[in-house]
Amino acid sequence: MKGCGRRSIYKKARLYPQIYAFVFILTHCLSYVLLTVRLKNVDLPAIGENDVLIKLLAAPINPSDINMIQGTYAILPDLPSIGGNEGVGTVIETGKKVKSLKVGDWVIPRDAGLGTWRTEAVFAEEDVISVPNDIPLLSAATLGVNPCTAFRMLVDFEDLMPGDSIIQNAANSGVGQAVIQIAASRGINTINVVRDRPEFGQLCERLKAIGATHVIKEEALRRPEIKEVFKSCPKPKLALNGVGGKSATELLRHLQTGGSMVTYGGMSRQPVTVPVSALIFKDVKVRGFWVTQWKRDHASDGSLFGVMLDELCSLIRQGKLTAPACTQVALQDFHRALDASMQPFISSKQVLLL
Amino acid sequence: MKGCGRRSIYKKARLYPQIYAFVFILTHCLSYVLLTVRLKNVDLPAIGENDVLIKLLAAPINPSDINMIQGTYAILPDLPSIGGNEGVGTVIETGKKVKSLKVGDWVIPRDAGLGTWRTEAVFAEEDVISVPNDIPLLSAATLGVNPCTAFRMLVDFEDLMPGDSIIQNAANSGVGQAVIQIAASRGINTINVVRDRPEFGQLCERLKAIGATHVIKEEALRRPEIKEVFKSCPKPKLALNGVGGKSATELLRHLQTGGSMVTYGGMSRQPVTVPVSALIFKDVKVRGFWVTQWKRDHASDGSLFGVMLDELCSLIRQGKLTAPACTQVALQDFHRALDASMQPFISSKQVLLL
Repeated sequence: MKGCGRRSIYKKARLYPQIYAFVFILTHCLSYVLLTVRLKNVDLPAIGENDVLIKLLAAPINPSDINMIQGTYAILPDLPSIGGNEGVGTVIETGKKVKSLKVGDWVIPRDAGLGTWRTEAVFAEEDVISVPNDIPLLSAATLGVNPCTAFRMLVDFEDLMPGDSIIQNAANSGVGQAVIQIAASRGINTINVVRDRPEFGQLCERLKAIGATHVIKEEALRRPEIKEVFKSCPKPKLALNGVGGKSATELLRHLQTGGSMVTYGGMSRQPVTVPVSALIFKDVKVRGFWVTQWKRDHASDGSLFGVMLDELCSLIRQGKLTAPACTQVALQDFHRALDASMQPFISSKQVLLL
Repeated sequence: MKGCGRRSIYKKARLYPQIYAFVFILTHCLSYVLLTVRLKNVDLPAIGENDVLIKLLAAPINPSDINMIQGTYAILPDLPSIGGNEGVGTVIETGKKVKSLKVGDWVIPRDAGLGTWRTEAVFAEEDVISVPNDIPLLSAATLGVNPCTAFRMLVDFEDLMPGDSIIQNAANSGVGQAVIQIAASRGINTINVVRDRPEFGQLCERLKAIGATHVIKEEALRRPEIKEVFKSCPKPKLALNGVGGKSATELLRHLQTGGSMVTYGGMSRQPVTVPVSALIFKDVKVRGFWVTQWKRDHASDGSLFGVMLDELCSLIRQGKLTAPACTQVALQDFHRALDASMQPFISSKQVLLL
């Protein structure tokens, strides 16, 4: 998996330029854009002196990838384009002037839009960042978006101390599970809200096993039983909202005076509705977070990204941060994986093995 | 008006304790609370060594006073209680240990809930703060709430430079007019949104005369003509919302990426609805402001309040900050004034002369 053993194959590929990389092409079809995603051979460009040749190893299918395909995401790539915004690859060859990377290193994208759903790629050195190659492959493949989103939301908005609480909806999402684990590693209580479902008991156990303090159904937020939760932990300083609509308004109701609600997703497709009194008299702060923008804002100061990755990888090595439940899918089965990623109540992230 | 000339009368009042101060009493009647507001003689307590005897001169009727009477405000006073949260009075007598005030000084309340709708009062020295007595009476009477709200919202949320823009609804309110004038004095463009009304042309002229850059009807925010506004001034960094509902959402649409919307009122009685995309991809910050809380938070560091009052009074003396249009009402006509203050499209603030 470290790629070194396969180096000779890629040397050979360079000798036989008719061997192309496999990519997904998104072409423009407004009526049903998704139909146009297909597997296709494309040219691999020459490796410039500041470039690296990467063998992609694994790449997840995230909701934002689907939104990008559907044309509903904030980033609209020029079509045709290569899908996938996250994933891990190994360095196969380096350009003459490349200094930060060597053959065998594992890398992840520094920014969204790089196109990770392909077997090989030539990337600029500055477009990728190395990660340790002694962590599980699925952890590395899913490191750059959800754990980074969770980490920054826990660090950048409120000064959380051990014993403090946060509340979140979509607690079973990739971000939600990372929030639970990173918060637990810092002694922060998490109140985790999930939609009711047949296997609620199992889900509750699973989230508690990774560190959740409380797991409650959305309906319970409006019932007196919620008071039980606040007997054992303080009112939350921070609410993390991946849903919007009524769910977000309910989170706000339980926030401490002066607390923040950070929205990173809108699964319900409903806006965030904030009572005027919560803003004026409870001084709640309603904010948003987009990890892609954070990465762009800190691109020139790359060290902050590196420091975060180091901290996350340290948690991974200690077993305190695990990848979410993943279904590994072979490249040929990509259509099945795309379909599966769009089902409601998915409890498993689809990851393409490349 | 400075009160000194009337000192002997109050000396006399102290000699004849059957002469009481006039006050409004709010008594509890859930069906129609407002009916129970009445004028009544009450005892004037003895002046303690840290107290001052104040002759109230003028006190406005603000929307928050009405909400307090109706029991819908964040502060619910013990009933019966004396109404009025703002106003100016002059010092008639000082307790032995009073150092910051002398007879003849003008004072305004440091906090809400002091009860300014009365002719005389004994207040603790620390409950009032002096203001210069060379500014117009109506400016002093209306200084402590609306201009302070406008000032803090312009200063505390975004770093506004000359040439920057802000957008606000309820532009004809007391806060709105103060925002226009304080912003103009700092070279900040104001885009002022008002509800459509028969005398829109006149209102537009009046707001431009006090410094408004643009005055537009709420409907125009959704029309292409809004683009004309942004040809002459940049997109606003700050939106000030006194209305809520659709009006607030429209303000958000025109905000710069990374800008803030600050809510200080909810005249429409509708919550603030924020698109998830505005939070995540436009990084808008949705906040609230309550001047009463600000005063409480800064009570121990009184100098910040004093510095703000000095700056506002300096603008008043230069003619750059005028009181809003006021209707002066004699004490006996208080019921008419209360009724008038609750009419829609009021363009004049009711001020009780005490």
